[in-house]
Amino acid sequence: MTRVYNFCAGPAAIPESVLQQAQAELLDYQGMGASVMEITHRGPEFMAMAAQAEQDVRDLLNVPDHYRVLFVQGGASLQFSMVPLNLFGVRTLNGKALPAEYINTGVWSEKAIEEAKRFGDVQVIADATPSHWRSIPEPSAWQILPQAAYCHYTPNETIQGLEFGYIPDRGDIPLVADMSSTIFSRPMDVSKFGVIYAGAQKNIGPSGLTLVIVREDLMAKPLTQTPQLLRYQTYAEHDSMFNTPPTFSWYLSGLVFKWLKAQGGLEAMAVINQRKAQKLYQFIDGHDFYTNHVEAAYRSWMNVPFTLADESKEKLFLQESQQAGLLNLKGHRIVGGMRASIYNAVPEAAIDALIAFMQDFAARYA
Amino acid sequence: MTRVYNFCAGPAAIPESVLQQAQAELLDYQGMGASVMEITHRGPEFMAMAAQAEQDVRDLLNVPDHYRVLFVQGGASLQFSMVPLNLFGVRTLNGKALPAEYINTGVWSEKAIEEAKRFGDVQVIADATPSHWRSIPEPSAWQILPQAAYCHYTPNETIQGLEFGYIPDRGDIPLVADMSSTIFSRPMDVSKFGVIYAGAQKNIGPSGLTLVIVREDLMAKPLTQTPQLLRYQTYAEHDSMFNTPPTFSWYLSGLVFKWLKAQGGLEAMAVINQRKAQKLYQFIDGHDFYTNHVEAAYRSWMNVPFTLADESKEKLFLQESQQAGLLNLKGHRIVGGMRASIYNAVPEAAIDALIAFMQDFAARYA
Repeated sequence: MTRVYNFCAGPAAIPESVLQQAQAELLDYQGMGASVMEITHRGPEFMAMAAQAEQDVRDLLNVPDHYRVLFVQGGASLQFSMVPLNLFGVRTLNGKALPAEYINTGVWSEKAIEEAKRFGDVQVIADATPSHWRSIPEPSAWQILPQAAYCHYTPNETIQGLEFGYIPDRGDIPLVADMSSTIFSRPMDVSKFGVIYAGAQKNIGPSGLTLVIVREDLMAKPLTQTPQLLRYQTYAEHDSMFNTPPTFSWYLSGLVFKWLKAQGGLEAMAVINQRKAQKLYQFIDGHDFYTNHVEAAYRSWMNVPFTLADESKEKLFLQESQQAGLLNLKGHRIVGGMRASIYNAVPEAAIDALIAFMQDFAARYA
Repeated sequence: MTRVYNFCAGPAAIPESVLQQAQAELLDYQGMGASVMEITHRGPEFMAMAAQAEQDVRDLLNVPDHYRVLFVQGGASLQFSMVPLNLFGVRTLNGKALPAEYINTGVWSEKAIEEAKRFGDVQVIADATPSHWRSIPEPSAWQILPQAAYCHYTPNETIQGLEFGYIPDRGDIPLVADMSSTIFSRPMDVSKFGVIYAGAQKNIGPSGLTLVIVREDLMAKPLTQTPQLLRYQTYAEHDSMFNTPPTFSWYLSGLVFKWLKAQGGLEAMAVINQRKAQKLYQFIDGHDFYTNHVEAAYRSWMNVPFTLADESKEKLFLQESQQAGLLNLKGHRIVGGMRASIYNAVPEAAIDALIAFMQDFAARYA
């Protein structure tokens, strides 16, 4: 078997050593004579694994004690509903709900905005659309509100390849971040956030699991109509086992957390990830045949979209790159072109191989 | 490695040949050089697998064309919310919502009832509680309503081991069934139902996936406040890929559907399952040391709870059975005692081994 270099935006690459361990113990978890998929989540073996996974998240991100770490289903898209359902009732003015601030930097922000409108007043305070997603408006230009239920943003837009290089400061207003495509790529200060959420299938593990980190005081007042499983409380009160959790995804994500620690934690990942991204952007910027449209200050470390000078060569580029063992370089259908997603599990050697291929391709077809 | 006989109520046993195939291709799905966990759900390889899984469900259950087969996250517990959110708006009287009928036969019915009350008027029309879950009231004794939004029941109660031997007839009122612990155990007439749902982790595959089969006309009018991902429409319109689905659970469930077909389909499974259950009940009924409290007509094919004449021997029974390679025989904490869950993937040899152990244990300690 030859493993390829996998640039898929999600479900994305998983560290090979993690897959190998999962493979080795797939029919027999810890000598139990059963798969980790076949054992009760309420037994000591699974409970220990689950608790360790939470502890590893806490260690990796240095999560303060007054934050809860939750393991949820439904992906980031379900968080687009859970955030407003849980937060619109927390901060009120004279008993009335406050509007929520949303920053629109691309496709995923837009989806979050559309969904939040079902549950409350949504104000878009900054918008990257007028720049055609080449940059994010500076905070001084934001149409901020005097008070708000919360402020939601998307630190990294997977499709446009647009990233915040900083954590916005909204004072007392709880900051909510969709970190699906950037969590664990570098250290971050959790205490600056009210809620952080991330679908697992980009930088954590298999799809079907969502990691939520929520400040305790923000769980207390879900809107009345909030379904049981859309209340953060429900997960916090039952260690994310109110009902059967997605056990295999939890287990495999736990292996990834261990792998991250073994790599040296997020400080070490940051060094590697920054170097990977810089290498690729440098090559693209230095070559007439390839273009990345995002201004340097807003470029993503994780998702690098690029176009070819000759659009008619796109199909060929994809065919030949796949033959060369470079998988899933097609850009999202909304923006077209190419995209290399270079998450934690994509090794630096994959970037080198990609650059070598791009060099060669351009030499032959430019 | 020695595989045990696994009587877990869920996450439950998975056919060994399915796990072996998953293990063999875990790092390389269909020669792609990547795991099925690492590939895009929008690519031809995953789409083909997903479509085949749906077709196999349709073949196995003979699903009529005007029913949609959906692959959802959140378990049966999320369906406790999705059913009322989607169905309370469909059938109305003079523009007003109708109450919903619920039949209470145990723990899972109760949870469904509690959750439905958030979204509409709930009437419990029959209740197995007064019988201490030994029997289900006959339909002639049900407090039926002249009209209702729907009628919800739990064909098999996993914890109490209580099962309907028939499909209730509520005329035009759409019948909704939580089939988590009984789906695929035997053939059934889907056309008698409005909605069928089942968490995968009992009789299908790994946790984190829920199968929903819904009649098309029941998807059209979700309540206004229904979140996007709690609308059946959202799944139907996007082939269950509005957002990233739980790809590995879907894939593994697909392997189980193929396995079911290879066993001879649900007619063949029904013969085996009935024989397995009869054997165990016969042994229990014929032995003074063991008791099953459910009346014969209401006994579950899938979950067989039993108690020991000498309660003080329970811990020993569990220890010794585990040493004998019989896993997870502990009853649910709510009812105590023992429970053998004998789903599709539990082979007949497991029942024989369990009976031999029970015989031997009683001979030594009765």
